[in-house]
Amino acid sequence: MPGNSFGQLFRITTAGESHGPANVVIIDGMPAGIPLSVDDLQPDLDRRRPGQSKITTQRKEADTPEILSGVFEGKTTGTSIAILIRNEDQRSKDYGDIKEKYRPGHADYTFDAKYGFRDYRGGGRSSARETTVRVAAGAVAKKLLHTLHGVRIVGYVKQVGAIVADVPDPAAVTLEQVESNIIRCPDAKKADEMIALIEKVRSEMDSIGGTAEVVATGVPAGWGEPVFDKLKADLGKAMFTLPAVLGVEYGVGFGCATLRGSQNNDIFTAKQSHISTKSNRHGGMLGGISSGMPIVLRCAVKPTSSIPLEQPTVTSKGEPTTIATKGRHDPCLLPRFVPMAEAMMAIVLADHCLRQRATRG
Amino acid sequence: MPGNSFGQLFRITTAGESHGPANVVIIDGMPAGIPLSVDDLQPDLDRRRPGQSKITTQRKEADTPEILSGVFEGKTTGTSIAILIRNEDQRSKDYGDIKEKYRPGHADYTFDAKYGFRDYRGGGRSSARETTVRVAAGAVAKKLLHTLHGVRIVGYVKQVGAIVADVPDPAAVTLEQVESNIIRCPDAKKADEMIALIEKVRSEMDSIGGTAEVVATGVPAGWGEPVFDKLKADLGKAMFTLPAVLGVEYGVGFGCATLRGSQNNDIFTAKQSHISTKSNRHGGMLGGISSGMPIVLRCAVKPTSSIPLEQPTVTSKGEPTTIATKGRHDPCLLPRFVPMAEAMMAIVLADHCLRQRATRG
Amino acid sequence: MPGNSFGQLFRITTAGESHGPANVVIIDGMPAGIPLSVDDLQPDLDRRRPGQSKITTQRKEADTPEILSGVFEGKTTGTSIAILIRNEDQRSKDYGDIKEKYRPGHADYTFDAKYGFRDYRGGGRSSARETTVRVAAGAVAKKLLHTLHGVRIVGYVKQVGAIVADVPDPAAVTLEQVESNIIRCPDAKKADEMIALIEKVRSEMDSIGGTAEVVATGVPAGWGEPVFDKLKADLGKAMFTLPAVLGVEYGVGFGCATLRGSQNNDIFTAKQSHISTKSNRHGGMLGGISSGMPIVLRCAVKPTSSIPLEQPTVTSKGEPTTIATKGRHDPCLLPRFVPMAEAMMAIVLADHCLRQRATRG
Amino acid sequence: MPGNSFGQLFRITTAGESHGPANVVIIDGMPAGIPLSVDDLQPDLDRRRPGQSKITTQRKEADTPEILSGVFEGKTTGTSIAILIRNEDQRSKDYGDIKEKYRPGHADYTFDAKYGFRDYRGGGRSSARETTVRVAAGAVAKKLLHTLHGVRIVGYVKQVGAIVADVPDPAAVTLEQVESNIIRCPDAKKADEMIALIEKVRSEMDSIGGTAEVVATGVPAGWGEPVFDKLKADLGKAMFTLPAVLGVEYGVGFGCATLRGSQNNDIFTAKQSHISTKSNRHGGMLGGISSGMPIVLRCAVKPTSSIPLEQPTVTSKGEPTTIATKGRHDPCLLPRFVPMAEAMMAIVLADHCLRQRATRG
Repeated sequence: MPGNSFGQLFRITTAGESHGPANVVIIDGMPAGIPLSVDDLQPDLDRRRPGQSKITTQRKEADTPEILSGVFEGKTTGTSIAILIRNEDQRSKDYGDIKEKYRPGHADYTFDAKYGFRDYRGGGRSSARETTVRVAAGAVAKKLLHTLHGVRIVGYVKQVGAIVADVPDPAAVTLEQVESNIIRCPDAKKADEMIALIEKVRSEMDSIGGTAEVVATGVPAGWGEPVFDKLKADLGKAMFTLPAVLGVEYGVGFGCATLRGSQNNDIFTAKQSHISTKSNRHGGMLGGISSGMPIVLRCAVKPTSSIPLEQPTVTSKGEPTTIATKGRHDPCLLPRFVPMAEAMMAIVLADHCLRQRATRG
Repeated sequence: MPGNSFGQLFRITTAGESHGPANVVIIDGMPAGIPLSVDDLQPDLDRRRPGQSKITTQRKEADTPEILSGVFEGKTTGTSIAILIRNEDQRSKDYGDIKEKYRPGHADYTFDAKYGFRDYRGGGRSSARETTVRVAAGAVAKKLLHTLHGVRIVGYVKQVGAIVADVPDPAAVTLEQVESNIIRCPDAKKADEMIALIEKVRSEMDSIGGTAEVVATGVPAGWGEPVFDKLKADLGKAMFTLPAVLGVEYGVGFGCATLRGSQNNDIFTAKQSHISTKSNRHGGMLGGISSGMPIVLRCAVKPTSSIPLEQPTVTSKGEPTTIATKGRHDPCLLPRFVPMAEAMMAIVLADHCLRQRATRG
Repeated sequence: MPGNSFGQLFRITTAGESHGPANVVIIDGMPAGIPLSVDDLQPDLDRRRPGQSKITTQRKEADTPEILSGVFEGKTTGTSIAILIRNEDQRSKDYGDIKEKYRPGHADYTFDAKYGFRDYRGGGRSSARETTVRVAAGAVAKKLLHTLHGVRIVGYVKQVGAIVADVPDPAAVTLEQVESNIIRCPDAKKADEMIALIEKVRSEMDSIGGTAEVVATGVPAGWGEPVFDKLKADLGKAMFTLPAVLGVEYGVGFGCATLRGSQNNDIFTAKQSHISTKSNRHGGMLGGISSGMPIVLRCAVKPTSSIPLEQPTVTSKGEPTTIATKGRHDPCLLPRFVPMAEAMMAIVLADHCLRQRATRG
Repeated sequence: MPGNSFGQLFRITTAGESHGPANVVIIDGMPAGIPLSVDDLQPDLDRRRPGQSKITTQRKEADTPEILSGVFEGKTTGTSIAILIRNEDQRSKDYGDIKEKYRPGHADYTFDAKYGFRDYRGGGRSSARETTVRVAAGAVAKKLLHTLHGVRIVGYVKQVGAIVADVPDPAAVTLEQVESNIIRCPDAKKADEMIALIEKVRSEMDSIGGTAEVVATGVPAGWGEPVFDKLKADLGKAMFTLPAVLGVEYGVGFGCATLRGSQNNDIFTAKQSHISTKSNRHGGMLGGISSGMPIVLRCAVKPTSSIPLEQPTVTSKGEPTTIATKGRHDPCLLPRFVPMAEAMMAIVLADHCLRQRATRG
C-alpha cells in the first residue's frame, strides 16, 4: 500500500504539509472503552511544538488538536479516530528560494525526481511538520499501552556534538528528569553544556547533530512476530521514518562488533519463576521478540540541513548557485526529536500489543 | 498481517524451520518475461551455505533450490514463484539440551513466552536457517533490478572485532574482490587478520562480532515513499529482520552526531543537467528517497550466541543450570551474513522499483 | 490491518460518525500532476446528499468538502490527500431510543456484541453517513481514471420493488439520462412508477428494496490480479462494504445457473487485431481480469431498516419492547445508493489501474 | 500487495499452475498448540479431487499433501505452515491448441493482455487447479474455528440448471447428508435429477451452471470490522476469488428487492438474555458484523467454459478460427465447488476470529 500508513492492527494514516491548511491522522485499531480526550494529546504536542524554547525554531504554532471521531462520552468506541491539527504560522514567503534551488541535505531534489512536481512551501510533505499528528497518535498509543499493560516510554537526549550524557540506568530515567531542562537530557551538567553548544552553533549560523535514547519499561515478554515483523525490525523502521535519522541501534548496538559471545550474551536468571537477564546488552529483545527487559534504542540524528550559512548548490535546471536558508529552523533537532521518537515507539508497541492478543487470545 | 511476509509489490512469504523437512518462499509481484532459472539462484545460495570454509559451521547442506511455479519456458510468467529448499543434514540429537534450557542470547525463552510452545530443534523458526530462501528470493530480486535498471548490489565485511577494513570507495568494490577470500572482505590484508582472529576465537570456544557494509549502485533518484515507507525505513527494517543485527546506519551514520550542518550537508552539483552530490555522507537517500548516489549502509552483527564455552542459565522452570552449545555453529556470523544482507537490500529495492513504476507509470 | 482502509495502491482510509463533528478521508496513492479541486468533488456529493428530493431523507447537510492536503496550485502532488466534511444537522435528540433498544435490521446489537460500547447517536459509525467521504474519494478516483484512460462510470437504479427498468444497453446509459429524474433510472416510464411506489410506501410508514446497476466503460483489458485480487473479487468486496447490500452479481449473474456452456460463453471476435466479445454475459471480466468489454455489475439493496411502523424488539438487557424509528430516513435507499456504488467502483478501478502500471511499467 | 495472498491475521499465500510441478500454500497466523496433521487435510482434498465420480473430470490426482513447516510433535507452533501438493497427471499435450487460440469464457485472452506472456498449459495459474491448496488451507482454518469456537461449515449444491433443491433449514444440513450423493445435494430426490441432467449435458458435449449454498453455524456475534472489512465484504470477496463465480448473495439476497422493510427486518428476541432473531433473512450479519445467527450465503457458478462442442473464436493474432476443448473437464463445476467455497468461508472466518481477539483481548 502507499507510504502514508504505518502499523498493522494499531495503524496510523497521515496527511498534511508544512504550509498547507492542516495535518490530520486517522488512527485505526484502538480498542473500545479506553478514556481519551485532547488533554491526553496536548502534553506531548507541547513537547514537540516549535517555539518552545530559545534553542528551537521560532515558528509559532499552538498545535491544538481536534478529535473528529472515534470517541464518545469520553471513551474510545473502537472505530477509527481522526485528529486534526491546523497550521497557523505559515509565512510561505520565507520559502520562495526553494522553488528553484535544491537545498543541500534536503528532499527538494529527490521529491522532484520522484513526482516531477512538488509543494515547495517549507518542504511540503517532506517537512518534519508532518510529525505533529504522529505525536498525537503516539499519545493515543501510550494511553493504550499504559492502560492495558502499564508500559511507560521515556526518551531523552544522549549526545549533542561530542558531549555525551552519563545515564547509568536508562530504565530509571523519568519524564520529570527529562523535562527539567530545555534540551531534554537527564544529566543536568551535560545538559547545560549541550545548551551552550547549541547556542554557539546557532550564533555561527550553523547546526549540530546528536543522538537520542528511548526506553520502554513494562513490556511483557513475547511481543514481536517472526520473522519479518520482529519487534526490532518494526521499531527500527519506525525510527528511520523520522526525518534526519541516519542510524538506529539497540542495547550494546554497534559496540557488539568488538565483543566476544562470552562477553555479549546476557545471562538468564530467575526469581520465583520470573525469568529475566542479569544485564541488558540485548536491549530488551531476543530473536526480535521482547524479553521482558527494558527496550533500549538509540537514534543518530543529523545536524539540521537548513542553515543560514551560505552554501553552494544547483537550481532545478542544474545551474550552479548558492543558498542560505532564511526560514525559521532548529539549530539542533534533538530536543524536539525526543517526543517524536517516543511516539513512534509507542505506535509500534501498541501494534504488537494487539498482535500478541490476536495470537494468544 | 502476520510476520512471515515482507514487501508490498515485490513480496516474499517464507516458511520453514532449522530441522523441519524444508524451507520455502513464495515470491509475489515479479514482472513477467524476465529470464529465470535455478542457475540464477545457486551462486548466492552457495555464498550463504554452511560448510563453505574453515571459518563457518560444518553443517552440510547442498541448498539446491527447486522452482515450483511462476516460470515457464525459462521466463517468469508474472504469477507467484515458489522456491523449495529441503533440509538434509539435520542431526536433531545435537539439540536435546535446548528443550529444557534457555540458551543465553537466543530466542528460546522469548519464543516460549510468545507461543507457549516451540519447535526446539536447532532453534526452529528462530534459526538463521530460515534465511536460505530469503537468499534465493534475493537472487530473483537482483535479476529484476539488474534487468530493468542495471542496479548492482555488493556487500562485504567491514569489521571483525577491532579489525576494520580500509575501503576507500564503497561503490567501487566488486563481487570478485569480495569473493577473493573466505571472510568476504575487500581489504586483503585486513581479511587475513580477520580470518586469523576468527580461528583464534574458535579455538577458545568463543565467537566474535563485526560489521558488514552493503552498497547498491545504479539506483535511480526517486525511489522510496513518503512518509512511512521511506527507502531508509524499509531498508532499515529489512536489515533488522536478519538474526543478530543490533544496529543499522547509512552514510556517515552515527558519526553525524558530532558534525555540523555545514560539514555534513552534501553539496549538489550537475553535469549536463544530471544532478548528483559531490560527497555521499547521506548514503544515497535524502528525505528517505533515493538521490541517485550509491546507497551505503552498515549493519552491526553480534557475536554468535551459541558458544561451546559453558555458561550459566536457567531451565524453562527457572532452575539454575549451565549450558555449553555443542551444535555446529559459526564462530563469526559475518562471512555468511553478507549474502543475506545483499538479499534483503535487493528485495527492498525491487519492491520500491515496482512502487515507483505504479506512481509514475 | 484494521477495517477502515480500502485499496492497495490507491487507498482510502476513513473516519467519522453520523452525529460526530465530521467525516474525513485520507486518499493515498493518487499520482502527481492531476488537476483537482473541490469542484471535482461537489457534484457527486450533491447526488449523495440527504434532502435532495421528496423521496429521500430530509436531514439537511451541505456536505461541503475541504481539501486539507495533497493539492498544490490546483494539482495533486502525489502525497496523501485529506478531505474533511463537517456534519451540520445532527439532532441527536431524535435517537434517544436507540440507546437502550436494538432496532431490527440495524447494527445496534452487533456493534454492542463487538465492542461492548458504542456511539448510539444515529447509528454512529454504522450509519451510511460514513459514505459521504467515500463519495468524495470516488470523485478523485474518477478523475484519475478519466485522465489516464478515459474510463467512465455510470450507475442507475434498475429495480424498485417489482418494477424493473428496461435498459437495452447498459454501456450506453449516460449520466444525463440518470440525473433526469429523482430516482436515477434511465427508463423514464419505469422511473415514474418507481417514484410513485416509493411515495406510497412512505405514506404507509414503510420502506422498499431494489437493485442498482453500475457500468464502467473504457477499462482496458488486463486489470485485476490473480488469484485473490481478481477484479471481480475486489469489486464484489467494494459493493458489500456498502450498507444494506445483500447481493452482487456480474453480467448474466445468477442467471448463469440455468445456462449451458454453449449458451453462456461469449464468443471472441476481432476487428483490426482489436479483440473483443460479441456479447457480454461475462460482465467485462474473464478469470477475474478485465476483458476490455464494459464492466457491468448489479447490487441488491435491502429496504431501509429504519421504518416509522412500530415493530417488536428487545432492549440491550433482553427485555421485550417495541420501537418505531422516528429519525429522518429514506423510504428507499436506491437513489442515493447510486453515487456510493459508482464511488466504490471507481476506487477499485483506480487501484487496479495503478497495480497494472506497477506490473507492466 | 500482490494478488496471491488473502487474509489479514489468518493469511494464506499460494503458488502453482495447472501443469507445473506443484502447488504450495503458506498459512500464516495459525495459533500455536492446535493439533494438526495431514489427516486433517485429506478429507476435504478428496472432496475437491478430480476423478472422484462419474460426473467430474477424469484427471487423476492423488492430491496428497506434505506439511513442510509449522507443525511439531503433532501440534501447530504458531509459525508459518507450508503445505505442498505435487501435480501428477499433467498430460500437457492435451492443451496444445490453447497456445494460439483463445478459449471462449476462459482467461487466455485476459492473461495475455495482462502479462504479455503466459503459461498456456491447462490455463496455467488461471486454472482451478490452484484451489487445491486453498482447500488444504481451509481445512486448517476449519480446525482453528472448531477448536476455538465449535464453528461448523457445511456447503451443498442448491441448484443445477432449473432444478432447485428443497432445503427447509440450511443450518440443519449435515456433512453426512451432503456426502451421501455425488452431486453433494442434501435433497436426495433433486440430487438424482441433478445427476441425470449433468449426464445428459455431458453426453451433449456441453456443460451446465448452478448455485451452491454455504452455511456456518456457531459463529459468535461480533465478528467483522467496520467499515471496509465487514464480514459480508470479506466473505463476498472470498467467494468471488473462486473461478466461475458470477454472483454472491446472503440470506434473502436479491429477493430483498421486492420486500418492504416491515417484511424484511428480522425481529430480535431473547432467551435468558441470549439475543437472537426469529428469522434469518439477514443471513447472519447485520451492519456486516456477525449476529450469532447462522451465516448463509449462495454463489452462482457459471457452466464450465471448456466444452467439447466446437465454438468459433480467434487466435492471439485476431484471426477467426474454431476450438473444441478436448482436455478433461467437469460438465458441471458444482460438486467440486462445494469444498472450495467451504474452504474460503473458513479462511475468512478464521481471520475474523483472530481479528476479534485482537480487538477484545
